[in-house]
Amino acid sequence: MKVQGEPMRSIWVEADGWTVGIIDQTRLPHAFVKAELATAEEAGHAIRTMRVRGAPLIGATAAYGVCLAMREDASDAALERALTMLRATRPTAVNLHWALEGMRRVLTPLRPPERVAGAYRHAAALCDEDVAINRAIGGHALKLFQDAWDRKGRKGRLNVLTHCNAGWLATVDWGTALAPVYLAHDAGMPVHVWVDETRPRNQGAVLTAWELGQHGVAHTVIADNVGGHLMQHGDVDLCIVGTDRTTAHGDVANKIGTYLKALAAKDNGVSFYVALPSPTVDWTLQDGVRQIPIEQRDGTELSDVTGLLPSGEVATVRITPPGSAAANYAFDVTPARLVTALITERGVCPASEEGLLSLFPERRQAK
Amino acid sequence: MKVQGEPMRSIWVEADGWTVGIIDQTRLPHAFVKAELATAEEAGHAIRTMRVRGAPLIGATAAYGVCLAMREDASDAALERALTMLRATRPTAVNLHWALEGMRRVLTPLRPPERVAGAYRHAAALCDEDVAINRAIGGHALKLFQDAWDRKGRKGRLNVLTHCNAGWLATVDWGTALAPVYLAHDAGMPVHVWVDETRPRNQGAVLTAWELGQHGVAHTVIADNVGGHLMQHGDVDLCIVGTDRTTAHGDVANKIGTYLKALAAKDNGVSFYVALPSPTVDWTLQDGVRQIPIEQRDGTELSDVTGLLPSGEVATVRITPPGSAAANYAFDVTPARLVTALITERGVCPASEEGLLSLFPERRQAK
Repeated sequence: MKVQGEPMRSIWVEADGWTVGIIDQTRLPHAFVKAELATAEEAGHAIRTMRVRGAPLIGATAAYGVCLAMREDASDAALERALTMLRATRPTAVNLHWALEGMRRVLTPLRPPERVAGAYRHAAALCDEDVAINRAIGGHALKLFQDAWDRKGRKGRLNVLTHCNAGWLATVDWGTALAPVYLAHDAGMPVHVWVDETRPRNQGAVLTAWELGQHGVAHTVIADNVGGHLMQHGDVDLCIVGTDRTTAHGDVANKIGTYLKALAAKDNGVSFYVALPSPTVDWTLQDGVRQIPIEQRDGTELSDVTGLLPSGEVATVRITPPGSAAANYAFDVTPARLVTALITERGVCPASEEGLLSLFPERRQAK
Repeated sequence: MKVQGEPMRSIWVEADGWTVGIIDQTRLPHAFVKAELATAEEAGHAIRTMRVRGAPLIGATAAYGVCLAMREDASDAALERALTMLRATRPTAVNLHWALEGMRRVLTPLRPPERVAGAYRHAAALCDEDVAINRAIGGHALKLFQDAWDRKGRKGRLNVLTHCNAGWLATVDWGTALAPVYLAHDAGMPVHVWVDETRPRNQGAVLTAWELGQHGVAHTVIADNVGGHLMQHGDVDLCIVGTDRTTAHGDVANKIGTYLKALAAKDNGVSFYVALPSPTVDWTLQDGVRQIPIEQRDGTELSDVTGLLPSGEVATVRITPPGSAAANYAFDVTPARLVTALITERGVCPASEEGLLSLFPERRQAK
């Protein structure tokens, strides 16, 4: 999508043909800064410190991390070391595992001298595939937006609520949950997005608001506490979120707090959609609440908030009293029963095993 | 309750016999600063700027605001002016209206020269009544805590989740929702409180964490997004919150986001209690979602966060990008069907018209 009027992706190979370029997302929205990754360790560090984040972009960055590792040492042992190091960067995102397993599958049969070229080729293909998947998700979801807009009599604006950032910054381009927002906006539909702040890392207030603003989409930032009230009063026409990992039965792991919005949507008859690239499905799991491990991050992400001082400097302030502990769970699981539909690159389906298998019948064979 | 080892209330008359002392709650938790109110305008300003907040404390401050007005001019016209000015400070809190109507009722029959003394007498009685009400609520709720602790086999700790600040800082003393927490802690029960941060003003992270810490109660601050996840995993034994206004049918207006926690409690079979001084009941309303006006506050409360710099200075940082609007709804309404029970100074009752009337039968006569 566009930044300062220029189209760009969230990850790319620099003109030297091997260095990997990213946007340092920890600097947004106060500064738009690019960064270069020259080693696998730098790629791992960028994932761990969330300079890149979002399940698809994490997968793409990890794939390029393997490319950078192969440049230094293309042996089997080095490949294993890189895969292990990169896999450990974030425990919840299934795309990470999927991307790394893809790299292993492609690289293992190659002779070491062929591995660098093979790695870059596969990483680039993985990025292009992500863009195609997201564009397809956007197209399918756009029909649901159009239906909601028709039901509303095409009056006022279409109010969409989203949580966290499942926009193009979370992917290689387009985004998952926000792809239909961009398509609807570009098609002239007066779409307005309620942007959940998304504590504790404020990805909504910081990233979603920034990327929607850069593209000119109307939006309003709200506290995570507000969505239920808006739904009670008819001010949300539909909810759409992304996912870090969805089980074969349709349970959805996504940013902490998603479950609360899904409960409110159910309670108020508001559609709750999950945009879902198929690599995000973990076909080995059924019960998301019991089976998906939830990452716990440092409590300082909650107690310390970063922003812009009136002087224009970026600073971090502590909001809690000294001696008060803070707990920081990064994701929660929304049970399938609360999800109106899953939107995949192959189309829309109920959040259920049957629903998913109807779109991915090859998985039925595999059972 | 105690601050730095010393027992104190949240509002008092200074040694001069007329100046009103408060804790400037906007300075907590980084500085413990008292402030003096010498005019009705200062009292109104303290309420509007939330140096005092919490429905019962707002009522008490407004009552003392009338005292201060009477000192300057005890005429009927001045009384009306003060009541009108103070009533406009916060639109949602019913205690404010209740306290001001009480002052009107007491002062109107008095001759102007008697009004100053009458006003201080009535304001002091109102504060003492608040303390007695909260202590009684604490006693009734303590039985529910003990039942939950028994059901848990008295193992581990009793995990209580609360939202916003319904502690002693929100009242004259004891608090409403936190009164049983203090009683349980003092009785030796290992109670632990999950403290919702409570965006956008962070009353949980700032005030609840501070007052629990001062009293030595175990607690952990969490993002508002986290409670549902904790309840899914059995880590919350009960929820208890306060209320700014409850309808005759048991619908509960409280800090924005309360509704989302009540939905999660219902979905996970966790008890959801509302601590409710009877002056908070608005007997004239039935349907809270439709009938309770919800205050909208300035969007900068969301976009700008105040805390402590590493240097020890207090500073405010902006988290949202320039050009992104922010909406700030202060309260939401939790329908009675999601509330396990109301806890009043007269006892515990179902959240329903019949439940409330069983404890307040004189209201049945009035119908």
